[in-house]
Amino acid sequence: MVLDKGLVLMSDTRTNSGVDNISVFRKMFTWTVPGERIISVMTAGNLATTQAVISQLQERTKAPEERQHGLLELPTMFQVAVETGKLLREVISATQTDNGTRGKGRFTASIILAGQIKGMEPRLFMIYPEGNFIEASFDTPFFQIGETKYGRPIILRGYERTMSFEDAAKLLMVSFDSTLKANLSVGLPLDLMVIERDTFAPLHERRIEHSDPYFDAISNSWSEALRSAFHSLPDYSFYQPDETT
Amino acid sequence: MVLDKGLVLMSDTRTNSGVDNISVFRKMFTWTVPGERIISVMTAGNLATTQAVISQLQERTKAPEERQHGLLELPTMFQVAVETGKLLREVISATQTDNGTRGKGRFTASIILAGQIKGMEPRLFMIYPEGNFIEASFDTPFFQIGETKYGRPIILRGYERTMSFEDAAKLLMVSFDSTLKANLSVGLPLDLMVIERDTFAPLHERRIEHSDPYFDAISNSWSEALRSAFHSLPDYSFYQPDETT
Repeated sequence: MVLDKGLVLMSDTRTNSGVDNISVFRKMFTWTVPGERIISVMTAGNLATTQAVISQLQERTKAPEERQHGLLELPTMFQVAVETGKLLREVISATQTDNGTRGKGRFTASIILAGQIKGMEPRLFMIYPEGNFIEASFDTPFFQIGETKYGRPIILRGYERTMSFEDAAKLLMVSFDSTLKANLSVGLPLDLMVIERDTFAPLHERRIEHSDPYFDAISNSWSEALRSAFHSLPDYSFYQPDETT
Repeated sequence: MVLDKGLVLMSDTRTNSGVDNISVFRKMFTWTVPGERIISVMTAGNLATTQAVISQLQERTKAPEERQHGLLELPTMFQVAVETGKLLREVISATQTDNGTRGKGRFTASIILAGQIKGMEPRLFMIYPEGNFIEASFDTPFFQIGETKYGRPIILRGYERTMSFEDAAKLLMVSFDSTLKANLSVGLPLDLMVIERDTFAPLHERRIEHSDPYFDAISNSWSEALRSAFHSLPDYSFYQPDETT
């Protein structure tokens, strides 16, 4: 999500191909040029696809003849989004051509791209499997990819652009907790990163493991807090005011 | 949902084929034999399919030679579920045979069946497009069909089998409100029905319209209540206890 103060990112680490084949893989990747740029990519979807994209992004930061198309040298976040989208589309279409093991539609993936390059604003993009993308604005200040629905209502209601990084981290944990409780395809640990504007380095990074005392506290007290919130609402009555008049 | 006290049902009324073709259709249908049985059917999915199923269920309660397979004469809720499932599967497969306008997979629908027949417990079933079904238990005391994800976390946390009908109605409204705020395919008005065990008649029925003062109050104060619940949680700190030791 985008705040006045900068960017806050969170991703889970669960990948699965069926409920009996669950693994932990990082889905958040960050490149920095100290004092000049910080770029993070988060992925959802087919793991082979997203790993191929990440590896190629990584390669391009190294090979001298590719560096000018790499994350570390492209002049704007928009151009980074264009190149990342192109790469994502290429990887997906390579797996979907006929080669005897055609897997149409099975190797799809999406990407959230976030970061800031010196002299420009922090920017946040969501890149579709087709390679095109949209950018967050203060009307739509956050993006979700993957299993998005369970965790959406609380973000819709809790987000404020002026909120502190700490509150934003708390909000994302509550949102992930709702999804974790409802859906097996999302699982701990979670990766959290906070990027303060104009610092071009992570202000805060944490992996939230299974035994994380703060996340456990949030998870346990949120059930309680939701229940009190629920009971604080006006009670329903079978006889509504409009019927008694 | 099933409570100790009986059954509480809620459905929306929005149908759409694309965002510019939105209509209001009832999705909750009830048949009663006073003092003997009450059976409700709620539908999600393709409207032509669900209307065909409902019409045929309705027909069978009338045609003398069909009545013994009808909702009003089948001896148990289980058999009603079997018959309804069979009908649903037949209607769907009829639209999916080749006739020049084959629409494979497009005319799918699901059904929630709830009710009680004298001498037996209130029962709640979810019927799949394939015609098979599952029954609710106190481990899984509620079913959702249609756009289920946004509204699920609050039900998971708010439900208690001993809760009052009024609290259950409130809980379902909060759940629907989360979905309404997140997804255009679900819309007011909502239909609410409360069936007390062993009464074989609706204890309470209401259509919640756009201007319903209670629903508006719930919807407005829930945002506020959620925000206070969120702020009541322990604050996140960049420096966690485990780092300072």
